[in-house]
Amino acid sequence: MNNFEFYTPTRMIFGKETHRQAGKIIREYGFKKVLLHFGGSSAKKSGLLDNVTADLEAEGIEVVALGGVRPNPALSLARKGISLCRNEKVDFVLAVGGGSVIDSAKCIADGAGNPEDDVWDYFLKKKMPSAALPVGVILTLSASGSEMSSSCVMSNEENGMKRGFNSVTHRPLFAICNPELTYTVSRFQTGCGTVDIMMHTLERYFTQTQNTAVTDRLAEGLLKAVIEAGRTADQYPEDYEARASLMWAGSLSHNDLTGAGRDFMMQVHQLEHELSGMYPAIAHGAGLSALWPSWARFVCPSNVSRFAQYAVNVWNLDMDFENPLKTAMAGIQATEDFFKSLNMPVSLKELGVEPGRIEELAEKCTNMGARTLPGIRELGKEEMVEIYQMAL
Amino acid sequence: MNNFEFYTPTRMIFGKETHRQAGKIIREYGFKKVLLHFGGSSAKKSGLLDNVTADLEAEGIEVVALGGVRPNPALSLARKGISLCRNEKVDFVLAVGGGSVIDSAKCIADGAGNPEDDVWDYFLKKKMPSAALPVGVILTLSASGSEMSSSCVMSNEENGMKRGFNSVTHRPLFAICNPELTYTVSRFQTGCGTVDIMMHTLERYFTQTQNTAVTDRLAEGLLKAVIEAGRTADQYPEDYEARASLMWAGSLSHNDLTGAGRDFMMQVHQLEHELSGMYPAIAHGAGLSALWPSWARFVCPSNVSRFAQYAVNVWNLDMDFENPLKTAMAGIQATEDFFKSLNMPVSLKELGVEPGRIEELAEKCTNMGARTLPGIRELGKEEMVEIYQMAL
Repeated sequence: MNNFEFYTPTRMIFGKETHRQAGKIIREYGFKKVLLHFGGSSAKKSGLLDNVTADLEAEGIEVVALGGVRPNPALSLARKGISLCRNEKVDFVLAVGGGSVIDSAKCIADGAGNPEDDVWDYFLKKKMPSAALPVGVILTLSASGSEMSSSCVMSNEENGMKRGFNSVTHRPLFAICNPELTYTVSRFQTGCGTVDIMMHTLERYFTQTQNTAVTDRLAEGLLKAVIEAGRTADQYPEDYEARASLMWAGSLSHNDLTGAGRDFMMQVHQLEHELSGMYPAIAHGAGLSALWPSWARFVCPSNVSRFAQYAVNVWNLDMDFENPLKTAMAGIQATEDFFKSLNMPVSLKELGVEPGRIEELAEKCTNMGARTLPGIRELGKEEMVEIYQMAL
Repeated sequence: MNNFEFYTPTRMIFGKETHRQAGKIIREYGFKKVLLHFGGSSAKKSGLLDNVTADLEAEGIEVVALGGVRPNPALSLARKGISLCRNEKVDFVLAVGGGSVIDSAKCIADGAGNPEDDVWDYFLKKKMPSAALPVGVILTLSASGSEMSSSCVMSNEENGMKRGFNSVTHRPLFAICNPELTYTVSRFQTGCGTVDIMMHTLERYFTQTQNTAVTDRLAEGLLKAVIEAGRTADQYPEDYEARASLMWAGSLSHNDLTGAGRDFMMQVHQLEHELSGMYPAIAHGAGLSALWPSWARFVCPSNVSRFAQYAVNVWNLDMDFENPLKTAMAGIQATEDFFKSLNMPVSLKELGVEPGRIEELAEKCTNMGARTLPGIRELGKEEMVEIYQMAL
């Protein structure tokens, strides 16, 4: 086990009806003027935004609204939010939505907290924010785990780059998680969320670090619960318990609990960021499910026992002691079959990716030759090309 | 799943050599004068206290030392610490030790933060502290989970009562966890710790609340890791990975992760508090291992399927679908056998408890008739007497 720090100060308020507590909670913290940040029309139509606005105003809190966040959230809108916060002297950013809205809110909070900086510099790892406006969340989509994580991923339309960075400054102060708010999430988006949640654990699980028994058992337990709940939510979108499992597991899968004590590099996320950076219509979860089986088959020979452990402990497959690779591959196949059962893509062809652009995808993923990706197997441009091609 | 709040703001600094960071960390937070709180001679002999004192002073931090905490920490010493903090204008309490030292430090922090209150009133649930000095921990014993929990348990020598209460005021700001510091923990104390860690999860696991899949899988995973690590540490006290697993699992077992979304009542802890209140020589973990098998057999018929799930998912026993009670009982037996394998007591006789005092134990556990204990099966005085007698 490696040395590590674990710090998850976000206060989770979880369960039925909890979204109506936002006004009271923000007033108790003493904030006066809130940027209410959200996405498209669904939160408006459902009455959620009206309710939250009313709850805030009932507590004497001023509300400045900024909607329009789309999947793969745009830097340009965040820049608008930063100006708004400064001009309106906003002291709190409340994200009502899923990962895109939360990440956009985090980016706004960092930008508003550091007037002298260009926020994109954080994503380029040129500098780090030293302060930020506090962020709160009302979660409407179980997927990104951004509600309890220090990560933030944005897309820059000027150069087609999608990049992320981690910072304690923007980790949400609180997250209100009412699983009922996810009843109306479509089958496709539910599948994308299930894949994304699994992937946050899987990307940490497939490592060369040994002796991480506690973290392994927790990761395997989370994966089993997510697989079961993902199946149920796919068939019964208003099953509270399945929606609740996905929501709680979503937060725990990306708050570092499943990474404690080991090296990891979110390789499939990096490969996917280039995909949805180049093809903005590709949903993050769909890009992940299309890439993971090929990535897994490519890196598996570098740590067969790890993949065999996954097959046995997560998928309850029998261990083939004479041929562990067979077990390892069966675990990858079980994962792929599960993605298919959720109608998620398992190839790039299904996503309309043009074979001719694979070189460019890989080139971008190396930051134009500036980096390789360490991990269970180190990936340079050549390896990335091979994975993208296997996934076609 | 029930609604719940989950809030674990303690910053964990985990791994080899980390204890030497205490001075730097406390200076970074800006504290100036520390009450260094500790137990007996082992921290002195090992040089740990000298090292920590030197590290604090090297950062310009003043140190006021207060040692002498013993197992089942005494209210009287904490009262002394409260006076010391007030007179010396201490602004931070650093616990160097295990659960007893940490709980004593929490009690001191609450008392020093509320000069007008009598701290014992918190334990009697008459009132709650409104503030506290911040607390930090250098952990030397994997057991209580107090380093990341909001709980605090103290013994009042004036009336022989042992009582606990939870408060966010005294939850540690940070906990430094170096598994190497536990190499010298005796086999007996290691066994006590393993039992205590398991018990924090087990007491939350055996519930009537249904549909807690995520919490169940995490709890089962933690238990499996603790059982494996407990076995190894018992035989190889300097096995870093086993010590690390116990330490990390100890923190996660009592920070509410394994209780999220369900009702629970620490019944075995309550029954044990009376034991070690009446017989202060009884170690907490030994009292728990002596009581748990009898408690489990007594309450098992109230939720056979839960105990069967435990047997299958934690102990990998085969489910007897025709006779689930048989599987359930086999899981309890496996637990008892495991405790025995660690040389932990599984009866009150081994602890020298006098049969004639059982009535008194039960009476005290009901707070002189003022309460029953809800849970997987409600326990009144009669049921408590029966459990104590089964355990003789």
